[in-house]
Amino acid sequence: MATNRKFLLSKRPSGTPDRDTFELVEEDVPEPGPGEALVRTLYLSVDPYMRGRMDAGESYAEPWEVGEPLEGGVVGEVVESNGAGFEAGDIVTGNLEWADYVTALGPELQQVNPDLAPISTSLGVLGMPGLTGYFGTREVLQPRAGDTVVVTGAAGAVGSVVGQISKLTGAKVVGFAGSDEKVSFLEDDLGFDVGINYKDVDDYGAVLDDAAPEGVDRYFDNVGGEITDAVFSKLNVDARVAVCGQIALYNAESMPTGPRKLGKLIETRATVEGLLVGDFAPRFAEGAKQLGQWISEGKIQYRETVTEGLENAPNAFLGLFEGENIGKQLVKVGEPEE
Amino acid sequence: MATNRKFLLSKRPSGTPDRDTFELVEEDVPEPGPGEALVRTLYLSVDPYMRGRMDAGESYAEPWEVGEPLEGGVVGEVVESNGAGFEAGDIVTGNLEWADYVTALGPELQQVNPDLAPISTSLGVLGMPGLTGYFGTREVLQPRAGDTVVVTGAAGAVGSVVGQISKLTGAKVVGFAGSDEKVSFLEDDLGFDVGINYKDVDDYGAVLDDAAPEGVDRYFDNVGGEITDAVFSKLNVDARVAVCGQIALYNAESMPTGPRKLGKLIETRATVEGLLVGDFAPRFAEGAKQLGQWISEGKIQYRETVTEGLENAPNAFLGLFEGENIGKQLVKVGEPEE
Repeated sequence: MATNRKFLLSKRPSGTPDRDTFELVEEDVPEPGPGEALVRTLYLSVDPYMRGRMDAGESYAEPWEVGEPLEGGVVGEVVESNGAGFEAGDIVTGNLEWADYVTALGPELQQVNPDLAPISTSLGVLGMPGLTGYFGTREVLQPRAGDTVVVTGAAGAVGSVVGQISKLTGAKVVGFAGSDEKVSFLEDDLGFDVGINYKDVDDYGAVLDDAAPEGVDRYFDNVGGEITDAVFSKLNVDARVAVCGQIALYNAESMPTGPRKLGKLIETRATVEGLLVGDFAPRFAEGAKQLGQWISEGKIQYRETVTEGLENAPNAFLGLFEGENIGKQLVKVGEPEE
Repeated sequence: MATNRKFLLSKRPSGTPDRDTFELVEEDVPEPGPGEALVRTLYLSVDPYMRGRMDAGESYAEPWEVGEPLEGGVVGEVVESNGAGFEAGDIVTGNLEWADYVTALGPELQQVNPDLAPISTSLGVLGMPGLTGYFGTREVLQPRAGDTVVVTGAAGAVGSVVGQISKLTGAKVVGFAGSDEKVSFLEDDLGFDVGINYKDVDDYGAVLDDAAPEGVDRYFDNVGGEITDAVFSKLNVDARVAVCGQIALYNAESMPTGPRKLGKLIETRATVEGLLVGDFAPRFAEGAKQLGQWISEGKIQYRETVTEGLENAPNAFLGLFEGENIGKQLVKVGEPEE
């Protein structure tokens, strides 16, 4: 019988997780029960929000349990369907364990059409990150032509979509990212007006004065921390801020002091709003359709960073906090059957 | 010829202002030019936002100039009208100098009907603070029946209106104020569910767990600082935060670190919005009419703290930052003619 590998949460990390946070175990490949399919993992998604699931506290995503499998977005191939409504060879996606093989009930899986787009995009630009960028931009950020839009984590799976959709509306877009290669990606491939390598910045206020001399009308925050403090100080009247992520703070052992520059909101009557893509679930098909069309028209570019091998999933996850990925970070676990 | 006294800004304060920030000068009572009225001051308003006008930086209110008169809301009596459209004895209000007598063009003055309500209320519950509470609650905070609403600066001119309107909508209201007397005012006179003397609080989180065990649905922030940090941590899904004032920070010599608990907004998809009453200027008459009706029906209570004498206006202003006032802080400068 074939062997299956899966990752468990070995312990709850304090501060920054490391390899010891993850435990790789082996077992027999599971048998699909009634109504279940056996799925062979092709791609696994690692995402910054998963750091929150490693903690015990309730948040918007349920905590992972110590000693239990990690789970996340997966694209895989159906090996065997035991009344799950799929056929062997079907490509499916779902929220599944970090494993070579998993069983899942039919309703936990959605079919992916491999002829429409590369299957990995169902975890990236056509999946949760792309939809977060789509609805976050259209429904929460609401950029207008002529606005100055600032995006942090701009070269990531979400930020790259936010910036490009903002450009499509006629806004000026300033993106912060963490390497010169990413800045080139923003400016040369994605058409951002200004890309800034935040690792080279001493004084965010001065950099923003240069990059956004007319102030900031829209701010899409994936990162938090010092950049966000500085952007708040540059908000214009009736500015809108979408808070999507705070990756700079996810590993903080004690949370830095809280909201202190709200006075700027009085001055500007700005709105700051939290964003969770699940709120738009009834409209995911609409979002994916529009994104797919923009991609086919060349209006939206996307990039993926692929780490090879399930065994390297922890490294891929940990690399998110080092900014090692450009675009969507994926783990390639298997090859589709030809 | 009679003598007029007026206050000038003697210098820009660093940190907390003191008496030396103000200079009282004497001059002849001015003569009204063409189209002007001579107004004798009866009441003068001091408000926390005036601290911002002492600084050079542009904000929503223009900076006061060093060596120039201070100005703010005044109620006075027309002594002489030189084609300004008023008659001697008329009661008027406007944004005027801190002085015994001022001249003003007709359009700078609005008539006050002394038969409808005590004239001082045109600077308080029927004036800017009351309207800030009215529009801030109805348009920005939007409390619903059953909500838990938290108000800081709850015994002040704005907060006391916010809490009472929230009660009228059927919300549970928790108010923070700075003395036991204020807490009695909140609970016994205004009908707040819980009043908390923040000066007795060691652990805001624990106090909020007790006072708002179901979390916070609406937060009206007049104060900022530590309380606001704690309330953010207790926000419920789809919470709304109205940022109206940050009095705890106005005298800070260096601004404490900026927005760091925005992660809570992701979890809750909460909205934080700055509030400036001037945005609702076209609807002031509507707001004053509704407030007046509620007052006449006994549904809204108000309190005023009156300091006697123009010469004590600086003390009245500085007392705002010590929390010496309950309800609207006024300076009584003169008596109306009988």
